[in-house]
Amino acid sequence: MRKEVLTLAFARAVFVEFLATLIFVFIGLGSALKWPSALPSILQISLAFGLGIATLVQAFGHISGAHINPAVTIAFFVGNQISFFRMLFYVVAQLVGAITGAGILYGVTPANTHGNLAINALNNNITPGQALVVEILLTFQLAMCIFASTDNRRTDNLGSPALSIGLSVCLGHLIGIYFTGCSMNPARSFAPSVIMRRFSSAHWVFWVGPILGAVLAALLYFYILVPYCMNMPDRIAIVKGTYESEEEWEEQREERKKSMELTSP
Amino acid sequence: MRKEVLTLAFARAVFVEFLATLIFVFIGLGSALKWPSALPSILQISLAFGLGIATLVQAFGHISGAHINPAVTIAFFVGNQISFFRMLFYVVAQLVGAITGAGILYGVTPANTHGNLAINALNNNITPGQALVVEILLTFQLAMCIFASTDNRRTDNLGSPALSIGLSVCLGHLIGIYFTGCSMNPARSFAPSVIMRRFSSAHWVFWVGPILGAVLAALLYFYILVPYCMNMPDRIAIVKGTYESEEEWEEQREERKKSMELTSP
Amino acid sequence: MRKEVLTLAFARAVFVEFLATLIFVFIGLGSALKWPSALPSILQISLAFGLGIATLVQAFGHISGAHINPAVTIAFFVGNQISFFRMLFYVVAQLVGAITGAGILYGVTPANTHGNLAINALNNNITPGQALVVEILLTFQLAMCIFASTDNRRTDNLGSPALSIGLSVCLGHLIGIYFTGCSMNPARSFAPSVIMRRFSSAHWVFWVGPILGAVLAALLYFYILVPYCMNMPDRIAIVKGTYESEEEWEEQREERKKSMELTSP
Amino acid sequence: MRKEVLTLAFARAVFVEFLATLIFVFIGLGSALKWPSALPSILQISLAFGLGIATLVQAFGHISGAHINPAVTIAFFVGNQISFFRMLFYVVAQLVGAITGAGILYGVTPANTHGNLAINALNNNITPGQALVVEILLTFQLAMCIFASTDNRRTDNLGSPALSIGLSVCLGHLIGIYFTGCSMNPARSFAPSVIMRRFSSAHWVFWVGPILGAVLAALLYFYILVPYCMNMPDRIAIVKGTYESEEEWEEQREERKKSMELTSP
Repeated sequence: MRKEVLTLAFARAVFVEFLATLIFVFIGLGSALKWPSALPSILQISLAFGLGIATLVQAFGHISGAHINPAVTIAFFVGNQISFFRMLFYVVAQLVGAITGAGILYGVTPANTHGNLAINALNNNITPGQALVVEILLTFQLAMCIFASTDNRRTDNLGSPALSIGLSVCLGHLIGIYFTGCSMNPARSFAPSVIMRRFSSAHWVFWVGPILGAVLAALLYFYILVPYCMNMPDRIAIVKGTYESEEEWEEQREERKKSMELTSP
Repeated sequence: MRKEVLTLAFARAVFVEFLATLIFVFIGLGSALKWPSALPSILQISLAFGLGIATLVQAFGHISGAHINPAVTIAFFVGNQISFFRMLFYVVAQLVGAITGAGILYGVTPANTHGNLAINALNNNITPGQALVVEILLTFQLAMCIFASTDNRRTDNLGSPALSIGLSVCLGHLIGIYFTGCSMNPARSFAPSVIMRRFSSAHWVFWVGPILGAVLAALLYFYILVPYCMNMPDRIAIVKGTYESEEEWEEQREERKKSMELTSP
Repeated sequence: MRKEVLTLAFARAVFVEFLATLIFVFIGLGSALKWPSALPSILQISLAFGLGIATLVQAFGHISGAHINPAVTIAFFVGNQISFFRMLFYVVAQLVGAITGAGILYGVTPANTHGNLAINALNNNITPGQALVVEILLTFQLAMCIFASTDNRRTDNLGSPALSIGLSVCLGHLIGIYFTGCSMNPARSFAPSVIMRRFSSAHWVFWVGPILGAVLAALLYFYILVPYCMNMPDRIAIVKGTYESEEEWEEQREERKKSMELTSP
Repeated sequence: MRKEVLTLAFARAVFVEFLATLIFVFIGLGSALKWPSALPSILQISLAFGLGIATLVQAFGHISGAHINPAVTIAFFVGNQISFFRMLFYVVAQLVGAITGAGILYGVTPANTHGNLAINALNNNITPGQALVVEILLTFQLAMCIFASTDNRRTDNLGSPALSIGLSVCLGHLIGIYFTGCSMNPARSFAPSVIMRRFSSAHWVFWVGPILGAVLAALLYFYILVPYCMNMPDRIAIVKGTYESEEEWEEQREERKKSMELTSP
């Protein structure tokens, strides 16, 4: 663990999670405000959230993995893909980034447009239980798409991972907005509630639903559908962040980068 | 056959067809309900169905091929690409998955939104014959896009198969919704009819049209435009699921997976 | 020439141009009809035309090049990329396919929806000269995108050629619909005029504009920006369809296909 | 420097920046005019700008890099990726191209549609300071996406750079239109103001915001997140356009092209 956390690459990755979540929440919430000049349509909001993720995964995927979502980060940990401390630092960075993004948005929009800053809530008279099922299902499909799109064991044509992941977010919003405004991401739900100091009694749905959906997907993908076959010490080493293969990979990456830096651009 | 059906890979593939069709029908039908707060537009519904397929093909294509559609599965069988038992298990899994997805949707939506659960029907005063031609043509273009996008004999740049296939589904809906609500997929049409216990006299169109369109595409693609040249015993072996090359491929895949599992992540 | 025209591959290619243009015109015009239930939006029509091309290029690009447009075919000939007879057969197949597609559409739509079958015309009081400039510019950007996306001399990341080309068609419609309903393709404009027996005095714009735009793009791309350096006999051989390298390529392709056919699927 | 500027490849690149910005501004502004027949929606305008960039990057990326934006060109210079003279010639070509495109648009649209030719302005009562923050953030995400999508040191799956960059432009417009009509590109803002001879007091925002956002992204990307490790003489050589590696690359490219030209198509 210690080594991983102390690397420059780790610091960059955590900073990038902060920055990407800041931009995602700023653009996503901003697109969903009740603009008086022309009320945004559901398709427009869905595309803003979806293309936001598509752009940020393309821009930052090679630096941090571009989770931009605590549910996804926790699921990657449960799937034994990242260390405990990477999970912890990422989630904190995402929450702080999201709140910062929502705060900037609050500052740059005129008062009559703030509304409730696009807080997630139960729409169309659905119950918390119904909302929970919807959030689980929608985050499940997103997490599956992420795991499959970034699985480096695949050798078939993966097309454009960033676009596929972004359009999966868009897809969730096309239906989720009707139920809950669509969370699929606790950071996206938490941030406007913090800025507006307004936490509804159903706020827990936007933590439990996404995390449960993503974790279910991780259990299914990494242990049943496309399992890794590793011994227990290696698995524990991944949790600790001391897994050699991972470190070697980091080192090789650093070296490869350096060698390129000498001969580039 | 026996061997194929008894493999773990086969069980995973059948389960994935169940799961993917469940999610597809849940999201697709859900996007097309008559939501009182804001009626979904045709473009919005088309994108929900299209991005649904795009996401699920990306997420599950490497596990089952991600047919998610009985017409496509039957066409792959007619094109001599899969065994009889694979076809049978896939189609059953898809139908059960679709009904489950429609059932969950029914359970999580408020009663005043159920409507007819987006059942396919003849719109704008068209006749069953006209609907049939439209369903044949639309499923034909989808099936052609699928066959071409997943043809591993191609060496040119295929771009992103999942997105191309998904956008082909979206394309069909952009025009098909005006005629029939757009089926192109018997499982998508069957499921809401089962849940609502409402079968219109034109329900057969949504079985015959898609299957005929997809099968025509398979005959054209696999036997005329880009034909395979195989002897009859091999062709029969494919139907039986005992084709060696296929088994070898499965074995190699399993082995490759194992070797990766030992050294990953 | 003789050899090329007499090959099975040539016959398949011509048939595919017929089929693809049939489907393109059927879906494109169909999406633009004045449906009484819900008038299609400009964005919706633009996406139908664009995703139509995206899907058909993906499905048929490896068989015929998927021009689906006489202007593109003529430009490829001017750019010294295809033989005179290939141009001739493609254009005829495209026109016949387009008329067939428009005819089928006429047959399957109720009479009150026919309207003028989405014929191209001068909108918003623009003059034929203004329409001509717009059609030239819009087809120019499409042709440039096609040439660059299918240039097999490129070694950089081309992404998804089919999607890029399709979205370039969509782009043209997003602005062209306001001016002319957007042609960019003489076959698309000719077909509904034939079926409805209605040729406006500005019909020539939809032949001259697209062909001029595409030919200008071909001259710029293939002779100035990214020129081929060939001797005159070779250039003439391409026009005649007897260019050896091309034939060799065809043969190799056939052989490669056969060898694959023996060992596949 | 001298050598680079005097090459044919340099002349082509500058011409292509002129041409691409002409087309981009023509289509972008044209899609945003207040058409009396059907007012374009925000989503439609956003897609026109986004798909415009997507198409032009695909068509011209291999010739000039397809910046099509003075802010991007200046940021590439600050990031030590291009020479001073390349920056200078590109920016001039972009501005002249943008004005030409806006002028053509003015000429081909009827007088009652001109409006203010889609000039950028402060909407919804926001202040210049708020507009500045929004333009910085939106251009920042675009520039990050461009740098990451065209970074030839990356070995992971980049998908479709042209589509990702174009959709990042679309994303910016989905929210930026509400604030400022969305610039992210000084050439896009400058051109209609020149043609209409109307410069608002906030016009500086559309120069300072985009340039600042893109330069901040360049500093972060090229010096902190994914830095190049070069000595000072090499860095200065890049600024001067005399960097050997770059010239070698150009030469190799020319040679590669020639060798291909001999054996193609």
